[in-house]
Amino acid sequence: MKTVMWKNNRVVMIDQNKLPNELEYVTMSSIQDVAKGIKEMKVRGAPAIGVTAALGLALAAYNSNATVRHEFIKDLEKAAEILTSTRPTAVNLFWATEIILNEADSVKGSPEKVREAVIKKAIIMAEEDVKINREIGEFGANLIDDGDTVGTVCNAGWLATSGEYGTALSPIKVAHEQGKKVNVIAMETRPKLQGARLTAFELMNDGIPVKVIVDGALGYCMSKGMVDKFICGADRIIVRSGGHVANKIGTYMTSVLADKHKVPFYVAAPSSTFDFVKDLSELVIEERSKNEIGIINGRWIIPEEANVFNPAFDVTPPNLVKAFITEKGMVYPPFREQLKVLKR
Amino acid sequence: MKTVMWKNNRVVMIDQNKLPNELEYVTMSSIQDVAKGIKEMKVRGAPAIGVTAALGLALAAYNSNATVRHEFIKDLEKAAEILTSTRPTAVNLFWATEIILNEADSVKGSPEKVREAVIKKAIIMAEEDVKINREIGEFGANLIDDGDTVGTVCNAGWLATSGEYGTALSPIKVAHEQGKKVNVIAMETRPKLQGARLTAFELMNDGIPVKVIVDGALGYCMSKGMVDKFICGADRIIVRSGGHVANKIGTYMTSVLADKHKVPFYVAAPSSTFDFVKDLSELVIEERSKNEIGIINGRWIIPEEANVFNPAFDVTPPNLVKAFITEKGMVYPPFREQLKVLKR
Repeated sequence: MKTVMWKNNRVVMIDQNKLPNELEYVTMSSIQDVAKGIKEMKVRGAPAIGVTAALGLALAAYNSNATVRHEFIKDLEKAAEILTSTRPTAVNLFWATEIILNEADSVKGSPEKVREAVIKKAIIMAEEDVKINREIGEFGANLIDDGDTVGTVCNAGWLATSGEYGTALSPIKVAHEQGKKVNVIAMETRPKLQGARLTAFELMNDGIPVKVIVDGALGYCMSKGMVDKFICGADRIIVRSGGHVANKIGTYMTSVLADKHKVPFYVAAPSSTFDFVKDLSELVIEERSKNEIGIINGRWIIPEEANVFNPAFDVTPPNLVKAFITEKGMVYPPFREQLKVLKR
Repeated sequence: MKTVMWKNNRVVMIDQNKLPNELEYVTMSSIQDVAKGIKEMKVRGAPAIGVTAALGLALAAYNSNATVRHEFIKDLEKAAEILTSTRPTAVNLFWATEIILNEADSVKGSPEKVREAVIKKAIIMAEEDVKINREIGEFGANLIDDGDTVGTVCNAGWLATSGEYGTALSPIKVAHEQGKKVNVIAMETRPKLQGARLTAFELMNDGIPVKVIVDGALGYCMSKGMVDKFICGADRIIVRSGGHVANKIGTYMTSVLADKHKVPFYVAAPSSTFDFVKDLSELVIEERSKNEIGIINGRWIIPEEANVFNPAFDVTPPNLVKAFITEKGMVYPPFREQLKVLKR
């Protein structure tokens, strides 16, 4: 199953806000639709957002009426701007639009030729994402012992990528394929409940035993020795600071608890999630709406006039990360030195 | 406002599951009703449960048809058993029923005389709870500086007691009365969302600025220096082990984060919450239903067939507690020695 795809010259994606109750594909026919889908988290997860942005630019290319090359490129640039303004933290958004714009730039000739190249490149990126995630799984599966229980936060499974494996869940799935018994403890991950809604759904479909806990219960589970390893995904990893990990709110807390309980804490991410340009001080943590916390299933769970603070991500310092699991292999400390191998 | 009270020979309580959307009092006319109310968490919070149990026994006394003393006492004992089987972790349940049974035992004479004494004692216990909580607030307010932001988990406010102050929120309210500026960060506290639903409601009514966060965001808030102190309540504090604190799931995690970020971590509780009898190994952590995590506002947020692990409490070790705030004063380490002053 695919999270997001190019179909009949449209971008088609699962509306993940409706999972697990409904599995519904929605068709996006304009760049505005695609941007809205990202912003409203119909599609989410750094790699999936990256692929969606690439396919979004393919859509912009398809829809462009420009007859001369520089007008066509301008249309693409405008579309890229709309896409990158949706969610500031996930680096894959910027990574993907840059690749597509570079591709457009490199293809000389008519708008028609550029259009064809852009669409082709976007489709290849979607396909490559699956391959990359499988590679992450191959490296990560070596860390998992038969009988392990692995903790995870949010959803970094196939739903967070273009399909099939995911990032943090890929080592678990590959280990499962290898015949190892693996159990998963999935933090529900408020406010959007991606762990409860998506990770549980995904692992159950794969036949991997999973238990959902509230986010506050992870400490108790670790104190009881119930978690052997912890693996999460990432939205942006700052290489210049030595590997600070921006990921779903709650991740930092899990890294502190893992440290306290000597549970190895791993971050699984493709090299496209590593930011080699910006420093930690330039990292923008997206703050989302009050309603996202305050309303669940159509009903207020806070007094309507109450204030909330709703950061979508937090930052885990590299000293709490045991290793990064990437498609290019494991990366162990000293990260400042070792992460260089991921540079494109 | 009262959380639970004796009215027209019935037990009347707020149905806290309906807050903040509806403020509804329900009337309980049998011990089974009261037990159900506790089990379903219409009333919750260790001190409130204690008072409810006392009033429940008053109701059992009122409803008893026994004409001879030992039959009457037997009715009370049966009622106490029904009440204490509802929620195993909160010690106040056991504390309150013991006091009432002792009262009944000490009053010689007719069932009518015992009945009168039991009802009177239960009403006094409800009134004393308010006074005790005010005293907790007086001692605790000294810890709060003008301009402080205090973090808290779950609801340990007036809704967790018989009324007015609460335990963990009492120092905040008294500091506010003293004219200090105090802000509160309230963890929403999944699965039952007592922080989002009750603490926010309560503090807004008191004019104390409060921000609701998801439980996973506390670490981020602390890492940003947004939390000056952390105060929580308790369901049972094990004195024999040196002060392990059983409290709402998620509390342990907050204590680890507080330790990491050098945020003073306080536990506010009346002496009735301290267990001088049982040891840590005898502590029972209540596990609650799958639906409590899986269904929010009438709709599944996990696949219906998914498994959950839903412990209602966790255990914070005494080395992570800076001090206990009680109605008899502050208790600082060494706790094994100092907690003795609380013994009744």
